[in-house]
Amino acid sequence: MTASKTNAFYAQSGGVTSVINASACGVIETARRHPGRIGTVYAGRNGILGALTEDLIDTAAEPAEAIAALRFTPAGAFGSCRYKLKSLEKNRREYERLIEVFRAHGIGYFFYNGGGDSADTCFKISQLSESMGYPLSAIHVPKTIDNDLPLTDCCPGFGSVAKYIAVSTLEASFDVRSMAATSTKVFVLEVMGRHAGWIAAAGGLVADHGIPVVLLFPEIDFDRERFLARVDALVKAHGYCTVVVSEGCHHPDGSFLAEQGVRDAFGHAQLGGAAPVVAQMVKEALGHKFHWAVADYLQRAARHIASRTDVEQAYAVGRRAVELALDGENAVMPTIERTADAPYAWRIGTAPLAQVANTERKMPRDFITEDGYGITEAARRYLRPLIEGEDYPAYQGGLPVYATLRNTPVPRRLAEFTPG
Amino acid sequence: MTASKTNAFYAQSGGVTSVINASACGVIETARRHPGRIGTVYAGRNGILGALTEDLIDTAAEPAEAIAALRFTPAGAFGSCRYKLKSLEKNRREYERLIEVFRAHGIGYFFYNGGGDSADTCFKISQLSESMGYPLSAIHVPKTIDNDLPLTDCCPGFGSVAKYIAVSTLEASFDVRSMAATSTKVFVLEVMGRHAGWIAAAGGLVADHGIPVVLLFPEIDFDRERFLARVDALVKAHGYCTVVVSEGCHHPDGSFLAEQGVRDAFGHAQLGGAAPVVAQMVKEALGHKFHWAVADYLQRAARHIASRTDVEQAYAVGRRAVELALDGENAVMPTIERTADAPYAWRIGTAPLAQVANTERKMPRDFITEDGYGITEAARRYLRPLIEGEDYPAYQGGLPVYATLRNTPVPRRLAEFTPG
Repeated sequence: MTASKTNAFYAQSGGVTSVINASACGVIETARRHPGRIGTVYAGRNGILGALTEDLIDTAAEPAEAIAALRFTPAGAFGSCRYKLKSLEKNRREYERLIEVFRAHGIGYFFYNGGGDSADTCFKISQLSESMGYPLSAIHVPKTIDNDLPLTDCCPGFGSVAKYIAVSTLEASFDVRSMAATSTKVFVLEVMGRHAGWIAAAGGLVADHGIPVVLLFPEIDFDRERFLARVDALVKAHGYCTVVVSEGCHHPDGSFLAEQGVRDAFGHAQLGGAAPVVAQMVKEALGHKFHWAVADYLQRAARHIASRTDVEQAYAVGRRAVELALDGENAVMPTIERTADAPYAWRIGTAPLAQVANTERKMPRDFITEDGYGITEAARRYLRPLIEGEDYPAYQGGLPVYATLRNTPVPRRLAEFTPG
Repeated sequence: MTASKTNAFYAQSGGVTSVINASACGVIETARRHPGRIGTVYAGRNGILGALTEDLIDTAAEPAEAIAALRFTPAGAFGSCRYKLKSLEKNRREYERLIEVFRAHGIGYFFYNGGGDSADTCFKISQLSESMGYPLSAIHVPKTIDNDLPLTDCCPGFGSVAKYIAVSTLEASFDVRSMAATSTKVFVLEVMGRHAGWIAAAGGLVADHGIPVVLLFPEIDFDRERFLARVDALVKAHGYCTVVVSEGCHHPDGSFLAEQGVRDAFGHAQLGGAAPVVAQMVKEALGHKFHWAVADYLQRAARHIASRTDVEQAYAVGRRAVELALDGENAVMPTIERTADAPYAWRIGTAPLAQVANTERKMPRDFITEDGYGITEAARRYLRPLIEGEDYPAYQGGLPVYATLRNTPVPRRLAEFTPG
């Protein structure tokens, strides 16, 4: 490895989003604009596992058009993984292996694209590289649909899920409104968000369009009687209502609604499904016909209705990560700084990873209405710009043109290694 | 009512679609182009119930821009209903009431926008008007996401659901492909289709993009062992697979997968949810981590990703319905006639309602692969043009601009009437 021509490593971590590849695009395109300083960007196949097992992908083998197409392609083009490195004390071997792989391939820039856990991993790697005397710029590229990272106004990935949920809630509410006179009166949509209600909050934006909507947040303990009274009142006033429930909505004792006593033929607790539980509850107590949907992966993969704001921010944090590395920064993360609500303005800032790791940002209480079932004007001001703008992919034969890369492997130079 | 200035009645029936309002737009805009022959288009509030209860909407009170916006607005702008008129013998009173309301408001054109049941109702009304000596042109405007009407190559409403399902299946499959190394290996998407597998078939279009997909049709009896063997083989070959299951998928004895022994806390059979049942089955037999989604109303309301072909056809059948009425036709339905597959070409034909009523068109066996889990090239040729083209609504503040009409009531002229 020479100072003038250092290779880079990029990996995707955790649950993917519809715009994480836009960050990859930002990283790779920016690196390619500095051929004098950055050699090749190697991507980890299946995230950090690719580094541990020396399963690297040569992104230089991809033509510029393929890299440009990443901006429009959902999910993780190089594969992601759910693999949390243990603490340095518990598994120093893995961290040392990473440094060994980086050394073998002349990698001096480490870009890790993920959420809170990945920020933590990235921070630990930066510490180890210092203590091992191996020079590395470790930059975290923020990504999470859950919008729960601290120190950034929002997280790339969230705006597009928020747009998908807001649009879908609006459309399905128009449907139930049409049917309510003789059929369905309550529609329940389950959305992601185990600990934070940011995604459910996006469903609340349809209230601007006159839709009666009840939001169920993980931040608010579920109260059956109060919830049913709210639904009853809305159906009486409007003839119908829509409920958006976070998968993480729970009873005061912490048990999830989704676990509420639903058993399969073998008596096993049925996994998932807060929406059917809520719908059934409404049916039993109020007698209304219901429909329910569980958006699941559809919401976080829906590149076809991505927010342009989100795509631009996802690209920008990827680009800035490379610029920070070239500036000699280490153990930092580019952030989104909001400078104005309306018209919305933002710029990229920087946060030290030491402050990012293992902090989860929930919805502020003043973003949730006093009764716990809606969002406040402060929340609307925050959310509106994040879903602003469309950024449609090209279509061919009725389907979006999404890129599948060649993912050419880089020849191995080291002995085998078994993670874990 | 004078021969030169006859009013029209339009109503929406059954489950709504993302393009049924495009048909309404076609009817109303075309009627407005014939002011010398058609007076006012009255819409039934909540479908045929609006006619029975004399709850009519004056569409003349809507400006041209509001009517034009219907083309881009999902669901039923005037309200739909699930209300099936009994046979003439069993409830002649209701049919006579309809004629009475039509007579009171000078209505000589009856446009009924719905599926098979509505075609039947429309046909009966045309017969009764003849026997009662009341001149009426009764024209059925086809609509159903299920694509199960006979005599038409496809049904307006289906192409957009097919596009939504194909796009969503593609996107979610990219997601599970990214995660498969360490996490989710099987993704299950439940789609509508109680008796016919047309919607599930659309999920099969992603096989063109290299996605390993298993389709579960209502037309094919479910075979647990064969299905699991298929999923196992695909996961072994590709690392992951996607399953698209029709809500109507059933065991050889006719019982739905969705009913398979899932009980809530009270011991009631859990309604809905073929997807969780299939996912749980895969988990128990093969041990794979899964995710599942139920698209429900989201699929049929998704105007944001409507097929342009579908929107154009929905508009065209509305327009032609009015032209047929002006030509003195009665008891007919405009149909879609395909004249070429690729490049796709179509025109509007006509079918007599006597042949439409109560016939349900399922997927032809030669559209389904021999093993029952995929679609054939014949099915692809059929489906591809139906999802072709995009027709995006305008957006404001990140959300689509959908019309909510004034729905001004027409003063009543008759005594009250209680349907049923």
